[in-house]
Parts: sequence; structure tokens; C-alpha cells
Amino acid sequence: MDRGTETRDFCAALSIEAAVARADQQLAALRTHEATVRAFVCDDPVAAHRHLTGAPVGPLRGALIGVKDIIATEAFPTRYGIDTPDEMGPRHDAWCVARVRRLGGTILGKTVCTAFAYPTPGPTTNPHDVTRTPGGSSSGSAAAVAAGFVSFALGTQTAGSTIRPASYCGVVGFKPSFGLLPTEGIQPIATTLDHVGLFAASPRDAWYLTSAMILHDAEILAPRRPRRVLVLHLPAALPQHDAYPERLEALAAELRREDVAVDTLDLPFSVADFQRLQQELCYWEAARSLLVPGHVRLVPELQALLGPYRERDTAEYGAARRRLQDHQSRFEAIARDYDAVLLPAATGAAPPIASTGDAVMNRFWTALHVPVITVPFWHSAEGLPLGLQLVGALGSDRALVAVAQWFHIRNAAAP
Amino acid sequence: MDRGTETRDFCAALSIEAAVARADQQLAALRTHEATVRAFVCDDPVAAHRHLTGAPVGPLRGALIGVKDIIATEAFPTRYGIDTPDEMGPRHDAWCVARVRRLGGTILGKTVCTAFAYPTPGPTTNPHDVTRTPGGSSSGSAAAVAAGFVSFALGTQTAGSTIRPASYCGVVGFKPSFGLLPTEGIQPIATTLDHVGLFAASPRDAWYLTSAMILHDAEILAPRRPRRVLVLHLPAALPQHDAYPERLEALAAELRREDVAVDTLDLPFSVADFQRLQQELCYWEAARSLLVPGHVRLVPELQALLGPYRERDTAEYGAARRRLQDHQSRFEAIARDYDAVLLPAATGAAPPIASTGDAVMNRFWTALHVPVITVPFWHSAEGLPLGLQLVGALGSDRALVAVAQWFHIRNAAAP
Repeated sequence: MDRGTETRDFCAALSIEAAVARADQQLAALRTHEATVRAFVCDDPVAAHRHLTGAPVGPLRGALIGVKDIIATEAFPTRYGIDTPDEMGPRHDAWCVARVRRLGGTILGKTVCTAFAYPTPGPTTNPHDVTRTPGGSSSGSAAAVAAGFVSFALGTQTAGSTIRPASYCGVVGFKPSFGLLPTEGIQPIATTLDHVGLFAASPRDAWYLTSAMILHDAEILAPRRPRRVLVLHLPAALPQHDAYPERLEALAAELRREDVAVDTLDLPFSVADFQRLQQELCYWEAARSLLVPGHVRLVPELQALLGPYRERDTAEYGAARRRLQDHQSRFEAIARDYDAVLLPAATGAAPPIASTGDAVMNRFWTALHVPVITVPFWHSAEGLPLGLQLVGALGSDRALVAVAQWFHIRNAAAP
Repeated sequence: MDRGTETRDFCAALSIEAAVARADQQLAALRTHEATVRAFVCDDPVAAHRHLTGAPVGPLRGALIGVKDIIATEAFPTRYGIDTPDEMGPRHDAWCVARVRRLGGTILGKTVCTAFAYPTPGPTTNPHDVTRTPGGSSSGSAAAVAAGFVSFALGTQTAGSTIRPASYCGVVGFKPSFGLLPTEGIQPIATTLDHVGLFAASPRDAWYLTSAMILHDAEILAPRRPRRVLVLHLPAALPQHDAYPERLEALAAELRREDVAVDTLDLPFSVADFQRLQQELCYWEAARSLLVPGHVRLVPELQALLGPYRERDTAEYGAARRRLQDHQSRFEAIARDYDAVLLPAATGAAPPIASTGDAVMNRFWTALHVPVITVPFWHSAEGLPLGLQLVGALGSDRALVAVAQWFHIRNAAAP
């Protein structure tokens, strides 16, 4: 598959002519490879092509964008990843969709998500290896950027649905701090855990899109060399394949040689306890947002999983929220001393397509509400991408992405 | 005005015949008094009447419900409190609306909210005194319950938009813990501060509605006598009129005589600092969710207010979020020792109609994400209602409402 488009980021050529030329290449890649990748539930390349030149003037003019099928759009139906001919969601633009359209962006179509963001795989394949999963639940969003069909894709992350597929597909995934991007118009899974996630070809592209949405101007972020990073030592409960620990150790050694201060720390909480906590919150909230509304039909597995949580009292839920708040305070006290906390973005390279992989490396940071970004950083023995995950203190989004851009460039320049 | 309906709660008579008879009384009250109260932007009493008997079987069958005009509904347009002939919002049911309809509830119409929940008054008057404000921004929701037009109303609270109008209008207002009720389908103001708020005739009615929405069954909560409460001593920065401090002091003395342990504590933060913090978060987030989407037209005052916040960096925002987290942890450490923290629900009785009053008693608890409920508890010298505000630890919603029901009954029985 032609990966020429995936390494060149949107910020590299912002003239409208260059942007339209790139979009035409992307539409050509779609025609050639979509039958294999299956990133889209529905798309309209003809309308997109027409829109590109007539789009409103704005920083995203010329950008083709994919939208996860759990995010409402006016132009396309929303089916929440359910294989049904029916239209299920509302026909209006979610906040993030309205925003990118207002900025001149062109929505190419709705990208595959697993049913209600539950891990059951959808039809999408990994653009690097058709036998591998693209990850989930933002499967199509990650694959569409990786396959060079779009410059950006909108996704979501409630556990690990942006960072994990981005790592598997070899693209940048960015989950901003909770609260930075409104989730209006997105089917709620778990109200206090749901985030908008973004897919792009570089950290600076991810920030270009984010800053366009939330700040006065779209900003092309300069890379920032970190002064001090923290490498997390992970317990056996977080399986690490494809020599992830050795790669991180080698990276730490290199950084030290480059005069970056590198501290190490054991993961500051019990994996089992934290997972139980996150699950309790997630399923409790999902039992309320998913089991109830009339317009939503759930897959039976999900119904069975969430059912017991409907019976649980609010006191248990409150206790879990308080425990999480303690974790948030403790992690903040650690993270604020570093430019980034580093760990693997997933347990290894993309596994075979029968599963969507494991979100175990991601759910902590989602629950803690802190910003996280992954940069494609290594390749496994089979040549599959492996992401480096960077975590920041709450609200340090811009600084964290600038550091990620430094890692991204440093890596691209490496032999 | 006939206030016969406002003191009898929905739970008091759950047979379908009794519910429909009460709904007919409510529609009669609407015909007589709506020209003065002006609680609704639009309503459809004829369709509501037809729906009442044919509604789906469920715990809210026979309940007339008002929906704040910032919450999307399929049956009525959404205008966000803007005085415009245009339809602005999406035509689908927000999560909470879909839920109450599914439970058999009948939506009577959209209730007045101030423009984008900003404090500029709308047309609604206070059912207790036409020269007084009903409060805001959920003006029509509070007034509709107070005037006996509906059994329940849905509102929102980002600062004090549920508790304050409930206190001014002499009804129960309940803002559950952040995350308990999804805000999907509600125009976002400030993502991390927006809550669904409920209006009802009693705490047990408020919990009946809440539990129907989020738990397996609608629950009729028994009153719970508190063992230990905390009365907050408020600084001069929180003005208290209508003898609020003396009333609270007298209540504390009575409670002690009834063997309830009563501690007192100075407000555990600086009012000015906390307000600045809350404002910073609120305006920063609102500048992103309100200034941008194409479908929203803002009042000029709001545009001017929010404009400067668009320029602010995410680092400032992050620092504010971290300061708030510290407050949350500190307040939790205090609140978990008490069945309720008590303070006035507003600075006094409803002020003249030129303003919507002051949210200064409410914004702390909203930002802290903790559950809050107000019970109409005293009357001012002019006979206007004054609410008692009860605050709980995060997630203690059910226990807090049960304690509020105890205060509600105790008060109703008082001479």
C-alpha cells in the first residue's frame, strides 16, 4: 500500500492548491484500498471532492476528515457501529463536527467503530497488515489516517479507543484533557470518562486541529525538547511484548546522553485495583447511558455485561468516584514535575484481527482525565508499528504535544 | 394563585387515575395562570392531554414534565433561550428527555431559560410574586413546578441555575453528582461544570425521577434522620439577607435539641479565589463551546464576556483544573463525615424581576461536582420562600436526598 501520504503532515503544505492536490491523492488511495481497509461505514467521495474547492475559508480548508460513527453528523446517518440498515442517531452535527466544518474541513464519511465502542471487532483491517486488527473502538478513524485516505479523523476514548488503534496503525493519536473538547452530539458511553480523540499524521497536526477548534487561531506548534521525563516501570500485570521494555530502556539511555533528565518510577497504583475502579465507573455509567434510551439497541453481550450494574446503588458509585479523585491528586503531584511520562502505547504490535487488542496501557490516563498522545516510534520484528505513549499533567496539553513533536521529529531523522 | 397542587407530590398518588386527574388540574392551572407566569416558550397542552392516557406504561405515566429550552426535544424546537423565530437546536430527544418519555412521562413543553443560560432575565415571573424574578437560568422550569403546571421539570446547572430558582420559587431543586445524569443533547456551556438539574414538589419526588432514570426501578425514598450535620459559617463575601443566618442558627439549635450532632465550620475556601477559579474554568470552556459552532448565535453581552477567554492558553486552564482538584479532595475529606452540609440556597428571597439573582451560594458545589438539593424551608417577612441548601459528598446522592426528605417532612409538620 502506498504510504507516501501518511508521513507528510497537513501543516507541511497549507496552500489551498497543495491541500486540494493532497486530498485528491487521498481520494485516489481510498478508491484503490478501501475495499481492503474498510475504514468507512459510509462515505461520499464525490460530494467531498466538490466540497474541497468550495469549502468555507478557514484553517482546515482542503482537509479531508473522517468521523467515528458514534459522533452525530448532519450529512451522514449515525449507527453507533451497529450493523443495521436503520439510522439510529440524530441528524445534526456534533459540536466537534460543526466546528471542523466551520473551519473549512471536508467530512469524507463515517468511520467504523465497534458496536457502541465495545471491543467486538468491526470489518476494518490494519493498513499495515490485513491479518491484524486496526484496534478499537475508533478502528476506522485510525485506519483511515494510516491508509492515507484522510488527513484527520475524529474518534473517542473512554478506555483506550484512540491511543491503542493509533499505535497499532502507526499514526498519531491524541486524547486531550477531559473538558477540553465538548462531547456534545456523541453517544455517551460513560459520562465522566468519554473524551473526543483525534488522529493525525504528526503531533503538530493534532495540535493544529485542536487549537483550530478551541483557540483563536490554528497553531503550528514548534517541537519542544524535554528537560525532564519520567519512564514508568510497569508490573507484570501490564504485559509488554515486542521488546517494549528494552526499547524504552534504550530510549532512556539515549535521552540521558542527550542531557534530558530521565527518572524512573514504578506505576504508582495497583493495576488490578485501578482497573476494577475504572470498570466500576465505566460500566455503572454505561448501564445508565446505554441501557435506557429508546433509540439505542444494544448488542446482547453488552446488555449482559451492563445489566448487573443497573442494580448498583449510587453510594458504591460515589465511593469509586472518591477513590478516583485520590488517584488524580496523587498522579498530578507526580506528573507536574515532568515534561512527559513515557510508557508503551499498547501491550505490543497489533494482534490478529479476531480481537481489537488490549486497552490496559490506556485506561488509567483516560480515567485520570490527563492529556495523552502517542507517536509511532518503533517497528516490531515483523515491521508493525509500535507507539510511544506520552502522558502529561492535567491541562498541559499544548506543552505535551510540543514535546511529542520533538520525539516525532527526532525519530523521523533517526537512521 | 392556587397552590394546592404544588404541595402534593407525585409519589403521593401513583395510580394512573389519580395521576391523570392531577395532570388535568395542572393543565387547568396552566390555562388560568400561564399568561402571568410565562413559564413556557412553547407548549402543547392538547397533545399532552391526549398523551397522558395513551402514554407507555412506566413509573412516570401521568406525569406532566417541562423541559428547559437548552435541552433538545424531538417534539418541540430548541432555541436556547434566544428570542428568535428560528429553530436553532437539533430535533432529537436529549438523553434525559428520551428517558422520561420511555418511562411514560408526558412532555408538556419547553420552559423558558435565559439566553444560553446567561443571567439576562427572560419573560417568566415568580409564581409567588409577579414583581419578583423566578431566578435563572432554569427560570421556566422552576416556575412551572411552583405554579402547579407540571409535576417535574428538567433544567441544568453550570453555576446556580437549578438551586437558586428552586429556592426563589419555593420548590425542590436537585443537582445530582457530576456524571450521574448524562448531559447528551444539552447545549454545552462548560463541559466540566454542566449538570442536569431537576425540579419537583418534594425530595422524594426528585429521587423518584432520578432513580427512574438511572436505576432499575423508580424508588420512593423514605426520609432519613441525619445523625450529624455541618452548618457552614459564611463570610461577608456571601451576603445573607432575610435573616438567613439567624434562621440557620435557630435550626441548628433545634436539631441539637433533637439529638442531631451539629458541627459548624467556616467556609473552607476563599470566596473570591474560588469564584475566580470557577469563572476561569466556566468562561474558558464556554468560549470554546459557545463561540464556535455555526448553529449558535450569541447575545452580544455574552460574546463580549467570553471573547477574551478564547485567547487564553491551555496551560492556564490546566492550572485552574488542578487547583479545583485540590479543592475537591479537601471538601471530600470534610463532607464524608456528615449526612449533610447546610447553608442558605440563595442570598435571600427572590429579588425584583430586573435581575435573576446571585448564584454565589451555589457555584462552589457545582464546580466541586457534589450533589446538592434545596428544600423550601422558611418564608421571608414578605411571605416569599427561602430554601435550605443541603450539600453531600460526591456520589452520596441517594443518602442526601433521603435526609432532605426528612427536613422537608419535619418542616411541613411544623406549625
